[in-house]
Amino acid sequence: MNPELKRERNNATFDVERITNVLDGDKDKTERRRFLESVIERDPTGIFNNDDNHYLHRTDRHKRGIAKGVRLIEICRKLGIGDECEGRITESKDFQVISEAVADDIPLALHWIMFQPNIVSLCDEEQQSRWLPLCRDWKMIGCYAQTELGHGSNIRALETTATFVSELNGGGDGGSFVINSPTLTSGKFWPGTLGRTANHAMVIAQLIDGDGIHRGIHNFLVQLRSMEDHTLLPGVKTGDIGPKIGYNTMDNGFAYFKNVMIPRRNMAMRFASVDKNGRYSKKVMSDAASKVAYITMMQVRSIIVVGASKALAMACAVTIRYSAVRKQGFDEDGKSEMQVLDYTQQQHRIFPLLAASYCIFFTGRQLAKDLKALEEKLIAAKPVTKEEVSDVHAASSALKSFSTMIAADGIEECRKACGGHGFLSSSGLPELFTTYLQSPTVEGDNHMLPQQVIRVLLKLVHAVQHDDGMEKYKSSNSFALVPSLKMILRGKAEQCSAINANDLCDLSTLLAAFRHRCARLLVVVAKQINDDITTNNVSPKVAWNNALVTMAKSSKAFSLFLLIRNSIEGIRDEQRKGIIGRPEAQVLSDLTKLFALYWMEKDLGDFLEDGYIRPNQAKWVAPSVLKYLAVIRKNAVALVDAPDFSDFRLKSALGRYDGNVYPHIMKAAEKDPLNAVDPGPAYEPELKRLIAGGAGIYTASRL
Amino acid sequence: MNPELKRERNNATFDVERITNVLDGDKDKTERRRFLESVIERDPTGIFNNDDNHYLHRTDRHKRGIAKGVRLIEICRKLGIGDECEGRITESKDFQVISEAVADDIPLALHWIMFQPNIVSLCDEEQQSRWLPLCRDWKMIGCYAQTELGHGSNIRALETTATFVSELNGGGDGGSFVINSPTLTSGKFWPGTLGRTANHAMVIAQLIDGDGIHRGIHNFLVQLRSMEDHTLLPGVKTGDIGPKIGYNTMDNGFAYFKNVMIPRRNMAMRFASVDKNGRYSKKVMSDAASKVAYITMMQVRSIIVVGASKALAMACAVTIRYSAVRKQGFDEDGKSEMQVLDYTQQQHRIFPLLAASYCIFFTGRQLAKDLKALEEKLIAAKPVTKEEVSDVHAASSALKSFSTMIAADGIEECRKACGGHGFLSSSGLPELFTTYLQSPTVEGDNHMLPQQVIRVLLKLVHAVQHDDGMEKYKSSNSFALVPSLKMILRGKAEQCSAINANDLCDLSTLLAAFRHRCARLLVVVAKQINDDITTNNVSPKVAWNNALVTMAKSSKAFSLFLLIRNSIEGIRDEQRKGIIGRPEAQVLSDLTKLFALYWMEKDLGDFLEDGYIRPNQAKWVAPSVLKYLAVIRKNAVALVDAPDFSDFRLKSALGRYDGNVYPHIMKAAEKDPLNAVDPGPAYEPELKRLIAGGAGIYTASRL
Repeated sequence: MNPELKRERNNATFDVERITNVLDGDKDKTERRRFLESVIERDPTGIFNNDDNHYLHRTDRHKRGIAKGVRLIEICRKLGIGDECEGRITESKDFQVISEAVADDIPLALHWIMFQPNIVSLCDEEQQSRWLPLCRDWKMIGCYAQTELGHGSNIRALETTATFVSELNGGGDGGSFVINSPTLTSGKFWPGTLGRTANHAMVIAQLIDGDGIHRGIHNFLVQLRSMEDHTLLPGVKTGDIGPKIGYNTMDNGFAYFKNVMIPRRNMAMRFASVDKNGRYSKKVMSDAASKVAYITMMQVRSIIVVGASKALAMACAVTIRYSAVRKQGFDEDGKSEMQVLDYTQQQHRIFPLLAASYCIFFTGRQLAKDLKALEEKLIAAKPVTKEEVSDVHAASSALKSFSTMIAADGIEECRKACGGHGFLSSSGLPELFTTYLQSPTVEGDNHMLPQQVIRVLLKLVHAVQHDDGMEKYKSSNSFALVPSLKMILRGKAEQCSAINANDLCDLSTLLAAFRHRCARLLVVVAKQINDDITTNNVSPKVAWNNALVTMAKSSKAFSLFLLIRNSIEGIRDEQRKGIIGRPEAQVLSDLTKLFALYWMEKDLGDFLEDGYIRPNQAKWVAPSVLKYLAVIRKNAVALVDAPDFSDFRLKSALGRYDGNVYPHIMKAAEKDPLNAVDPGPAYEPELKRLIAGGAGIYTASRL
Repeated sequence: MNPELKRERNNATFDVERITNVLDGDKDKTERRRFLESVIERDPTGIFNNDDNHYLHRTDRHKRGIAKGVRLIEICRKLGIGDECEGRITESKDFQVISEAVADDIPLALHWIMFQPNIVSLCDEEQQSRWLPLCRDWKMIGCYAQTELGHGSNIRALETTATFVSELNGGGDGGSFVINSPTLTSGKFWPGTLGRTANHAMVIAQLIDGDGIHRGIHNFLVQLRSMEDHTLLPGVKTGDIGPKIGYNTMDNGFAYFKNVMIPRRNMAMRFASVDKNGRYSKKVMSDAASKVAYITMMQVRSIIVVGASKALAMACAVTIRYSAVRKQGFDEDGKSEMQVLDYTQQQHRIFPLLAASYCIFFTGRQLAKDLKALEEKLIAAKPVTKEEVSDVHAASSALKSFSTMIAADGIEECRKACGGHGFLSSSGLPELFTTYLQSPTVEGDNHMLPQQVIRVLLKLVHAVQHDDGMEKYKSSNSFALVPSLKMILRGKAEQCSAINANDLCDLSTLLAAFRHRCARLLVVVAKQINDDITTNNVSPKVAWNNALVTMAKSSKAFSLFLLIRNSIEGIRDEQRKGIIGRPEAQVLSDLTKLFALYWMEKDLGDFLEDGYIRPNQAKWVAPSVLKYLAVIRKNAVALVDAPDFSDFRLKSALGRYDGNVYPHIMKAAEKDPLNAVDPGPAYEPELKRLIAGGAGIYTASRL
């Protein structure tokens, strides 16, 4: 063990294992995770070894990713993982843990993450009973094919068509649909595993019914390949979309359909159907059912939020451990070198990210709980208001956007904070970063989501302004904004109450400031749109467009408010449940303070602009940040130990638990195929030709 | 030509070619660049074709990079490029242009970028006359070997040793040095081409003279490989350091030396020497010579600044063109889709970056001019004060740090702003980004440089405060800060004079605000350090460390001041010289205003904190940003056309000049080796085994 890391760990003021339990859920879950991780790490086939990942050509990396997936399923079947949920391993907690333990992208994962849940959500019972067993047994390997070459999130614009053909017109028994990609831009593009792995796709297409009427987009199960020998079916053209900045193990694919006929009953028919005469009908969906479907979508976002916390925590673990080991510059005595972790600027780069990873964890967990509670209420047929659902929708949209943005930028900041060695693949950070980069874009582009947030929150502003219907928001997240909204809308000045720097660092003072900031920005958005329409005479559409920048700011402000509030409450809960004691609660609260102060410093203008914080109070912010950097400093290594990422999972020469950095950098370097022969592979013929003068000579007459 | 792009170009209000000439230098340089680019693009060997780059394994990519370099040299010799500077193509303007035209990383480039200049700077005339012809003829291929596995920018800590051995002790005629890597961490690590390409290295090592005295670090030319057959010499172990986040064409390398003996005269002896008795002496370097050496280092930074502008401009070109072509969401009429470029939020993401690329260009050019002027003064033996040199040092450090930060973050923001397709390698943005990522770290880590900036500027603060020696700063960049510094230090309130939003957008008003902000932050740093020492009783070292975060802020503020000022002056110069007319000056000024307003909005707290901007003035900032986004909107495409990046150079399916995006995305996709066979390469044996049930079955008793 590196002596610096050892000392850091000895100096920690809290019990690391107790925070590990918080992050896992409880003590038993920590145990179980460790067991499942050991199954993967010690698998006798050795297929899960990640040491050679960076040296493989993409094709080989993909092949290995498939092999890992197959072995993973084999292991799960042996261990009975998934048995508890009737083979739908998707829903197995153990399965989620063991897949994560693989610490690499598995192309097959989209089958259980997107394809199976889609069948469950959108297909009727008969369809589910036909298809789910095939999914379970991997006869059917599916992907979810929505986006097209020319069309991303604007699904109304999708061009793929599914046209009803009756029995009379050659549609076979009960009628069929013919799937077509009428244009170049209508080709399905991006769906994971569509390229090379899946033999079925749930294709989102414009339904044209028996009367030739366009019925909007619906889902159609289209077989792509033979289930016997994986050859392409007639009319289907598919392939991989080529290399990407990250996630290259995955075969994201394209597909073009030319008169591909599928049985009529391959349309997902839970919520709409077409009968054998081509007649379209929407099924009357109960209010509760439609809300449950909506909640399912939001659950994906809560998973992304928790994922952001984890990815950021991994990057912090690498950078903080390495910064404790790494030395640069000389100490006071001019002889011993300083630990990089002791530079306040390095602390300022990393510790707020460490704090963010914890705050995002508490918030992601809270979001998941809120969604679960709503779902259970609905299933128990208890009343759930539209406002409750849209409030969680606003929170999940804001948090997805903000947390993936912090995580993506933060991982890269951690990478840069490792200096030159952060550039090495063997640091683990490049792949962590580039593969994470999909998250800000998928499941609602981070720059589109704020509109969804603000659309909901403006209704609350309206309700407060007109004192109309506020009670509908009582049990919602955003209701907490009401006190500030009232003050602002009534033209009364809210002001920060801090009388000195210590006072400013009080969590309730900080939370109040973020509440006010968020409320004020919402009022600014509302006013801007209103003024634009009434004073500048622009259309609501144009006014909306003009307000997008302020909306993004407000959505971020809402996220920050939620993050701070949920952390405060999450820490209190854990302490009440006895999972953590005072020392752990203390360090987690310090992290929350640092997080809030850091963002206050960063966005100081927002707090000063309307005088909520006065200039004399503003002067306390930067020094308080500095103070809490110093507070976190002594626990920094222990705090990145707490998530208990094994070396196998971190895959980082810099972030090793034992701190034995340099031999592992060298070991990784020497493995590069460029080093397999000497002289290197580029010597012959070109370099040799150059040295021998075969590439011409210098011809100047002078010299 | 895509109709949207055509319309955009027709709507431009200025003459694109005139701004192209500004960016190239003048009309003739534009012509020459176009000619040299055509030489590369039409080269009959086809080696410069970049279409397959993303599909190659790293080893093949490196091989191809070497082949490109050799062909480039061959072409230059044929065209006589480099003849004008006696074969030192390094110094040939044409050579710089034609290398850039290759639009790919060439490992051999470090030979002329770092190795040859190092010989010129640090070796005496006899050494130069022996080695430079070998460099010119590529018998000697060199690299610059400074950093070590355990030691980056802190060169005092380097561990490699060069120990003098006299003739008597077996050092041969005239004595020798023995080069050793005494520890694992002392291995040279990172030097470009050290791994596989170079046959010589300029090794930075701790000199131990004939009396066993450590004389600090010096440069030693060490032969690594045979110049005949490229085999390694005894005692040398070298190899590539493995894959990286970017720049993978380059063989960054490691090297360990075990008793490698080199002739005594292989020590670079321009400024210090060891005689055959092992006696060390420093040569008395003239003040002017030492300043020239210093300026050479700063010139590298000015090149990096100009490079930041170019890389960012390329990313903007891709994103702005694609955002003009790409449509999403429906227009007012609910039918036609909107150009993504019309969303204010998209504009807010990209246009300030476009503006930054121009402001950085003007500033990089000014910096290069300042350095050239200083150099010429020194060569002409005119007096140059220490303050003049250190002022340019501060400016180059601040600008290197800030411009590479904006460029790295900005390229990634551009990539994200392309939505999903920005994730594709064929968009060109991933490689542009990941390869650019070295810039924030090399040649002074961006987070270390602010200290160098502030060290210089605090002296100015001191001079103003004590009204002592201010005249020494008269001709320096930072002298412009003096009026604000005086006001602040005399306790007088400077305040923004804007009486309305229009007034705020005046360039002189904006410049004054950025001047004040910078001056104020410098005073804050000075005060913080002083208070820490006098009131908190900490050591100067600790006080310095505590101030690092504020220093970073101040250094950024200094950069922003310089960027705005140099843009204003640069535009005025171009107009005066008649290279541009009123319309071009207008659009460039609008860009500068947007740049300033955007950063004022982002850092608003800095301007509000001391009341320089009052809350009522602060309210004008965000709407003014919005106003200038709209102003730039109509010229956005023309402004990214102006740098005249050919499709060959942009290498982007999304950023094509003709806007013919989608067919080129598909063309690139289909080329992936994963698509070479069907079923794909991962089908056998694992996927087949899974589908056939060979990986076990689901065993639950229920269902």
